[in-house]
Amino acid sequence: MTRFAICNAAIFTVDPRNRVIPDGTLVVEEGVIARLGDSREIPVPADCEVIDGKGYALMPGLIDCHSHSSLMRGVTENMPLMDWLPWYQLEHRAMTEEFAYHSARLCYLEALQSGTTCVMDMFRYMDRCADAAGELGLRVQLAPYVADRPGKDFFSTREENRRLIRSHHETQNGRIRVWMGLEHLFYCTEDAYREAAALSREFGVGIHTHASEQKEEEQAVTAEFGRRSLAMLDHYGILGEQTLLAHCVWLNNDEIARVADTGTSIAHCPVSNAKLASGVAPVPELLAAGVTVGLGTDGPVCNNSLTLFEEMKFASLIQKATRLDATALPADQVLRMATINGAKALGLDHEIGSLEPGKKADLLLLDTGQANLAPVSVDEQGGNLIWNLVFAAGTTNVDSVWVDGHQLIARGQPVQIGAASVIADARQQGLRLHEACRSLAHTRIPMN
Amino acid sequence: MTRFAICNAAIFTVDPRNRVIPDGTLVVEEGVIARLGDSREIPVPADCEVIDGKGYALMPGLIDCHSHSSLMRGVTENMPLMDWLPWYQLEHRAMTEEFAYHSARLCYLEALQSGTTCVMDMFRYMDRCADAAGELGLRVQLAPYVADRPGKDFFSTREENRRLIRSHHETQNGRIRVWMGLEHLFYCTEDAYREAAALSREFGVGIHTHASEQKEEEQAVTAEFGRRSLAMLDHYGILGEQTLLAHCVWLNNDEIARVADTGTSIAHCPVSNAKLASGVAPVPELLAAGVTVGLGTDGPVCNNSLTLFEEMKFASLIQKATRLDATALPADQVLRMATINGAKALGLDHEIGSLEPGKKADLLLLDTGQANLAPVSVDEQGGNLIWNLVFAAGTTNVDSVWVDGHQLIARGQPVQIGAASVIADARQQGLRLHEACRSLAHTRIPMN
Repeated sequence: MTRFAICNAAIFTVDPRNRVIPDGTLVVEEGVIARLGDSREIPVPADCEVIDGKGYALMPGLIDCHSHSSLMRGVTENMPLMDWLPWYQLEHRAMTEEFAYHSARLCYLEALQSGTTCVMDMFRYMDRCADAAGELGLRVQLAPYVADRPGKDFFSTREENRRLIRSHHETQNGRIRVWMGLEHLFYCTEDAYREAAALSREFGVGIHTHASEQKEEEQAVTAEFGRRSLAMLDHYGILGEQTLLAHCVWLNNDEIARVADTGTSIAHCPVSNAKLASGVAPVPELLAAGVTVGLGTDGPVCNNSLTLFEEMKFASLIQKATRLDATALPADQVLRMATINGAKALGLDHEIGSLEPGKKADLLLLDTGQANLAPVSVDEQGGNLIWNLVFAAGTTNVDSVWVDGHQLIARGQPVQIGAASVIADARQQGLRLHEACRSLAHTRIPMN
Repeated sequence: MTRFAICNAAIFTVDPRNRVIPDGTLVVEEGVIARLGDSREIPVPADCEVIDGKGYALMPGLIDCHSHSSLMRGVTENMPLMDWLPWYQLEHRAMTEEFAYHSARLCYLEALQSGTTCVMDMFRYMDRCADAAGELGLRVQLAPYVADRPGKDFFSTREENRRLIRSHHETQNGRIRVWMGLEHLFYCTEDAYREAAALSREFGVGIHTHASEQKEEEQAVTAEFGRRSLAMLDHYGILGEQTLLAHCVWLNNDEIARVADTGTSIAHCPVSNAKLASGVAPVPELLAAGVTVGLGTDGPVCNNSLTLFEEMKFASLIQKATRLDATALPADQVLRMATINGAKALGLDHEIGSLEPGKKADLLLLDTGQANLAPVSVDEQGGNLIWNLVFAAGTTNVDSVWVDGHQLIARGQPVQIGAASVIADARQQGLRLHEACRSLAHTRIPMN
């Protein structure tokens, strides 16, 4: 039996009681958490590999509930969402499966290095994203960027999404899952939404789409459809526990209640919502209504980082600043959004998102011995470290990452694959993609 | 002659023309930038140590215009400013010169490791902060936490400030400068402000104080003094080019004009202002009025990080999000705030803050070959890298840091001093300080 134990770490379980174990031991057997608890009470089997966790914090791997892999970081800047979209479309007009593969490799590497073990990726040529995920070893949910309205033929097709379910859903020991992906109300027909709902029931897969990201978008949706975004999605029959909506910045109180009543989940992307000037989502109201809210980076194009540490800090800060309420979204609540609530939003909370016996060993070990976290004191309420996990920790503290009990990151570097070659390939492919976009821009889209 | 050259780096000069040199060479002689330019045009002397900058970005060291060293990171959380202040006062009631020394050592280490070469520190026992800065090698401006109103005897005294000017101003090859420090209108008498103005003229030192941080504070100031904060400081005669005001979140339009007219500078602390629910400072209006605005972290107690990279990103994002304007505070503007404008706010723009011949070699070399910055393309307008310096780079990219041409950080670790011992000492002292604060809290201050 393959097993190892991490001993004497400060364990943040994020379990239903939010238990913190100041000096804890966690034993992994066959990729699953076998037991965990106070180091004095947890026996470590004699034949077990032992990792000394003294000076480290052990927590569940972070979960990015909404991302779009890309090689276009920092290329289309300084534009509000509605001006920026035509540029983003260029990336997808120029997309090839080779670009898609290298986009996913780069982004999954960055995710893992910043402590993320599971990514919901809405992107293209997603069989190649599955290849990338296989090489890196992380857990991914693949939601193809489906669009079927006239003029949107440069995204993924419904047929691609159906095929991907049959070929890839629950492959790689269950680490790959396929969802129904729908770009947006302006990109997809009613038929696409109704098919997504039907296939979701048939295959037991989730549905992921964007909604209510920007004020002008809500106005445009209302002008075109005669109802607001959420009402349209409701009309199309896709609200429910199987569905994850990205953004939802502009929901009103009735809509928040409807999201809660239907059990629909939300991927909150505060950095992207700020960067594209979309606004500030009503997260405290969503949480108060009982909505499951996970965190998403939205990918390198509009963030430009893929670290959930930054997303956690920013999620809390922007609520405090705009409500003039220093108690808005405290650390433990944000930590749950980035872990167990993210898992729930992805339909995976029975498997991941917290450290509990029987759950998969998706683990993050943080070096708390660096200047940016000192001094450290941990008690059963979390001590100062629970605050600093959210407000001070970052990629620089990521020492080791495991998914399914396989170590993927050690001392901050990937184990299964060479970072340098992934980055060199991404650079070469990225510059080629930028060039392809520029050529398309000259022929198709007026430049500003 | 001591000299070295960094060759083939992407150089972001932040000079008056914001010049970017995609493949540049910079030569340092005796701690000063001797010349820089396109690598094809800059001769490298034969006896010169050569550092290969290919795959790196070279920029001025970052400048933290407002910090308070501390060992209390993450200890007093989830409180608005006015509730939090009594707790912060406990730290200062418990402060000793030993605690002060270890606070400064830890914070200066964290600053350097995140690419900051110059810190404005308002703190206590600042001769010991000077010792810490000497060990670490960075540039600091020391502004003692002076308070002289009755009941505020636990801060620094005016006599301490005068003594520190005589003993430490312009020591350590000019890397240490002493300013007049004044806590706040509620902590200092009119006489203290008038003395600060007089000593500022006599010794040519600056004046640093807090102003208009929170709405309730403005209300309380008006209730006590019959005028708003800025009017009071104006009345006390301290506005002017020698003065740096921290925060200024709640300035109105007339006050912005007065700040601009007097040449007073502002240290903008967006993360701290969010975390303590102070609000969002009117930075675009300040910049439009011609005010010099630098960035500050405000220290580990209310941030909880000391990285200007995060501060830059957050400064831009919070303006975009709250104004619904994606073009607010673009990258080049924020980069200037963290470098040359910070230098100007500290009265050091003739010496540091940009890469120009004759300026001191306070340099930051960033590894752009990591996943979080890929792919990289740099042209004379900065390419995608200028955006990613602000929106994607972080401590993980900090490879090397020089101050006065001395290398202080190499491969992310300090050269002159062992990080482990600084952190171990800080941990030990920090836990002792936390305990001292808790004891004081039980005897003096009602706990919530």
